[in-house]
Amino acid sequence: MKKDRRRLIAAAMGKIPCDLTVKNVQYVNVFTGEIYPAEVDVIDGFVARVRYPEEAQELESKETADGEGHYLIPGFIDAHVHIESSMMIPEQFGRAVVPWGTTTVCTDPHEIANVLGIDGVKFMLENGRKSLLRQYVLAPSCVPAVPGLEHSGAEFGEEEIGEILDMDGVVGIAELMDYVGVYSGSERMYRIMEKGLEKNGFLQGHGPLLSGKELSAYAAAGVESDHESETAEEIREKLRRGMHINLRASSLVNHMDQLAEGIRQIPYHDFISVCTDDVHAGDLLALGHVNKVVRYSIEHGMDPVDVIRMATLNGAREYGFKDLGALAPGYAADMQLVKALDGGRPERVWIGGKLAAENGVYVGETAEETPDFSNTMNVGWMKKASDFSLTAETENGTVPVNVIVPLDSTNVLRKVERQELPVKDHRVCLDGREDLAFVCVCNRHGLENRTVAVIQNFGLREGAVGTTVSHDSHNAVIVYKKEKDALALLRELERTGGGLCVVKDGQVTGSVALPVAGLMSLKSCREVAGEFEQYRQAFYQVCGESTPLLSCAIMSLTALPGIVVTDCGLVDGGKQEFVDVFAE
Amino acid sequence: MKKDRRRLIAAAMGKIPCDLTVKNVQYVNVFTGEIYPAEVDVIDGFVARVRYPEEAQELESKETADGEGHYLIPGFIDAHVHIESSMMIPEQFGRAVVPWGTTTVCTDPHEIANVLGIDGVKFMLENGRKSLLRQYVLAPSCVPAVPGLEHSGAEFGEEEIGEILDMDGVVGIAELMDYVGVYSGSERMYRIMEKGLEKNGFLQGHGPLLSGKELSAYAAAGVESDHESETAEEIREKLRRGMHINLRASSLVNHMDQLAEGIRQIPYHDFISVCTDDVHAGDLLALGHVNKVVRYSIEHGMDPVDVIRMATLNGAREYGFKDLGALAPGYAADMQLVKALDGGRPERVWIGGKLAAENGVYVGETAEETPDFSNTMNVGWMKKASDFSLTAETENGTVPVNVIVPLDSTNVLRKVERQELPVKDHRVCLDGREDLAFVCVCNRHGLENRTVAVIQNFGLREGAVGTTVSHDSHNAVIVYKKEKDALALLRELERTGGGLCVVKDGQVTGSVALPVAGLMSLKSCREVAGEFEQYRQAFYQVCGESTPLLSCAIMSLTALPGIVVTDCGLVDGGKQEFVDVFAE
Repeated sequence: MKKDRRRLIAAAMGKIPCDLTVKNVQYVNVFTGEIYPAEVDVIDGFVARVRYPEEAQELESKETADGEGHYLIPGFIDAHVHIESSMMIPEQFGRAVVPWGTTTVCTDPHEIANVLGIDGVKFMLENGRKSLLRQYVLAPSCVPAVPGLEHSGAEFGEEEIGEILDMDGVVGIAELMDYVGVYSGSERMYRIMEKGLEKNGFLQGHGPLLSGKELSAYAAAGVESDHESETAEEIREKLRRGMHINLRASSLVNHMDQLAEGIRQIPYHDFISVCTDDVHAGDLLALGHVNKVVRYSIEHGMDPVDVIRMATLNGAREYGFKDLGALAPGYAADMQLVKALDGGRPERVWIGGKLAAENGVYVGETAEETPDFSNTMNVGWMKKASDFSLTAETENGTVPVNVIVPLDSTNVLRKVERQELPVKDHRVCLDGREDLAFVCVCNRHGLENRTVAVIQNFGLREGAVGTTVSHDSHNAVIVYKKEKDALALLRELERTGGGLCVVKDGQVTGSVALPVAGLMSLKSCREVAGEFEQYRQAFYQVCGESTPLLSCAIMSLTALPGIVVTDCGLVDGGKQEFVDVFAE
Repeated sequence: MKKDRRRLIAAAMGKIPCDLTVKNVQYVNVFTGEIYPAEVDVIDGFVARVRYPEEAQELESKETADGEGHYLIPGFIDAHVHIESSMMIPEQFGRAVVPWGTTTVCTDPHEIANVLGIDGVKFMLENGRKSLLRQYVLAPSCVPAVPGLEHSGAEFGEEEIGEILDMDGVVGIAELMDYVGVYSGSERMYRIMEKGLEKNGFLQGHGPLLSGKELSAYAAAGVESDHESETAEEIREKLRRGMHINLRASSLVNHMDQLAEGIRQIPYHDFISVCTDDVHAGDLLALGHVNKVVRYSIEHGMDPVDVIRMATLNGAREYGFKDLGALAPGYAADMQLVKALDGGRPERVWIGGKLAAENGVYVGETAEETPDFSNTMNVGWMKKASDFSLTAETENGTVPVNVIVPLDSTNVLRKVERQELPVKDHRVCLDGREDLAFVCVCNRHGLENRTVAVIQNFGLREGAVGTTVSHDSHNAVIVYKKEKDALALLRELERTGGGLCVVKDGQVTGSVALPVAGLMSLKSCREVAGEFEQYRQAFYQVCGESTPLLSCAIMSLTALPGIVVTDCGLVDGGKQEFVDVFAE
């Protein structure tokens, strides 16, 4: 971070007045783990000096804040987060998380990159700069996630990765999700990693359940971190190999009991930091952000100062940020005043010495301008209801279909099962089968590719549900009983530029507009959370309660070990190969 | 460090055989602080995998070493050392320290730089590359130490510093000894530091007794480390400001009791590493190197694994070395097998997976070629004995002289005292004053500059003692009773290319030849220690036992708070100003 060190030195020496002094605080020193009374002098956004109360200040600061004896801790650092999961743009995301004490995030714009490519990454960087929140970006490593099994809006090879790494604010390569590619010697992954290492970038990991030789190979490749651990043993094995562990509690995953247990078994915690990965707007409003992980950790018996160190200094060291994560001379004055060391909402948050939030309210200016982006819904080629039909060679009679059926009651992982289904006028017909629905995945990135298949026990009773938030390629996924409802739903997604939608009796009954790449709203956290709640209600008017709300969003996720649907066909994620829609 | 990650990954996966496996060891994991049985697989000089004994190896390694159940720990890192203090060249220094378990040193070639400038730094880099020991170099920040009060052989401004920082193997700027310059805004120091920060280099500190606003300003300037702490409080204050502390025990300084006390008071130790600063050949032979500091620390009650972590991983993290200081996939296979975690001599030492020392014997190849360097003794202009006379305007009678007298019994710090001394034929004469001697500091860097003064209670009884190792400018310093002995001594220094010398009755009775810049021998540690011992004996034949052996070496040290002698005159180090040789 550029700083005028002449002025910093002069301010520390008391030769020029500071901009701000925060007085009367219990200062939490994350370097030493001590807590003691102090006054913090700030100039040009950086800490010049941390004084003991008995040390006189030579010149009075321009402004003084009274900490009323509460704790002053550094701002939190989120070591790994996908902003798109909040369905907010970076500037709005900043407004949502800063009041919870987060002052720096390291983001993986993997979702928008799959839709808009490098332009999407640039948008995240540029829009992020309008926020007080410090937003660093990592170059998405897996765009598309699995080449050949689906079509996304972009393809990143070493050249694109190199171009992104050269951008201001980009600090490394984001989670290397193709861990199998990494340890089995995929040339594509190898070249992407080499580009990262060549540019002195950080290589972020994603190695769920990796152990033994595969984990060693993953670490030997240069991968430095991991946030996927679910068990105490997994944490230990990764730490033993020198990896940084990002403690995670997201809107989707929370294994804090196991993680806390793993940490208790290890004497040293300086390779442990904190991340949120995916957080929904509603959870941000209700539960918080990094502070939530801090709170959960403390609730699971971890030492508060130790956890605060993880959520601040350790994250900065993981990335090699030399002036973040602590309040000491030369460090950015990113700080929060908290009543207790419990992960609760801070009373005040400063970023670069500027007040950024107070009592839960963001006080930064509004970036009024509307971001420049175009509608990414290239689905005009889906014109009529019959485009959503599953057409068979047989004109009338029955046909054997590879029906997608749940593996278990969680209704997340699936397999296929051969079933004879009736055909009328070459169209597979679900009449009389309440348990079946159609699913269509429809390319929206410029190819006229679609897959229509049959799914059992999805839980849809009538109408249609669908979304453009569909990992990792974000094509449109629609589950429906009748083709005309699917068409109405797709038209609504086209109108809004993408989003989440429910159709009942041909009418839109729930809709969250996500006009930015079909992934993000322009609205505030509160508005997005409100719209999402309406969508949720509409969703459960047509679906049973056992249907996960985000079922459609992972219907195409080829990383899952089961049957998924992409714009190219049915895919067995475990085997990484296609399965025919019709059975033999 | 360049590595073929394809091969590393393949080796970790067991697809290609490793070069070496060290079996049957208690592996000390410095990341987690755990100790457990393991086998370490190495390929191309790097660790591919650390296996639990029960984990099978897919392919047998080309070579196997049996650790016989002893501990395997990473090689030690010396975070700050002046190789010149050992009086050995870097290649020989490597032979001396590797058998003690040191595998990486970060060196400050401050002494040779003051004599030979950039060529001196290049020599240290090039000669260091001939050693198995990993030798990183920092750009000396204070050449000369105090411009204007003495003449050295070179002057480094921001340009020279920039040139050095661009050299392969240079990792930052060496100890910023002019800490007063740093905190009081010296333009010279500022520009040197900015150059370091611009090149993303590490700024090493040297801030003895700094505290309060001066310490804050020093840290705010970007200085990241310090090795000068003498008290528990000093350690704490520096750690609190985010500085890395290098625990030091050198041949000159050892405050381990205080440092251990300071560390006990602080919960977190990951900003603490280890250094040796200045170590003499004899001490290296008898006491060891980094392992000595480790041993002292443990003897003072520190936890052995904690100390080993300091001496390995913490040093690497201080510098941002991502593949040193630990034994984990992708890390350099710099390792030592030790019987106990006590800082004793290792049984075996590997560097980059190659056996480098066994039972105290270095097993690397000898770099036979003689380094290319020229005689730096430009003292031919001192031709006759009378050049060493202190000449007065008065022809005969007495003259008031500012005699240099000890401040206390330690005979290190000095002041001046006006004394009337006899003059014969314009020459100040010491006849009948057993307590007095002459001291001459004679420029050897191309200027015909010399200072002759009178010193009291130095302890010289007869003859002359002198050296070219004379901090920080390394001009020739000779203390003598008779001018002819001084001339004989200077001729010997000229002949040997510099060194340490004793003359008695016109004859050389002790001489350590230091032909490399008048600072370093070409010989081995054992030989240098032997020659130094002979010199010591000769020294104490002409000097009393209360005379410190290295008195001459700090006679010119303008950083001392007292009277010193440079080629420009008498200097009051505290006031940084000249004092006349003759009194008013």
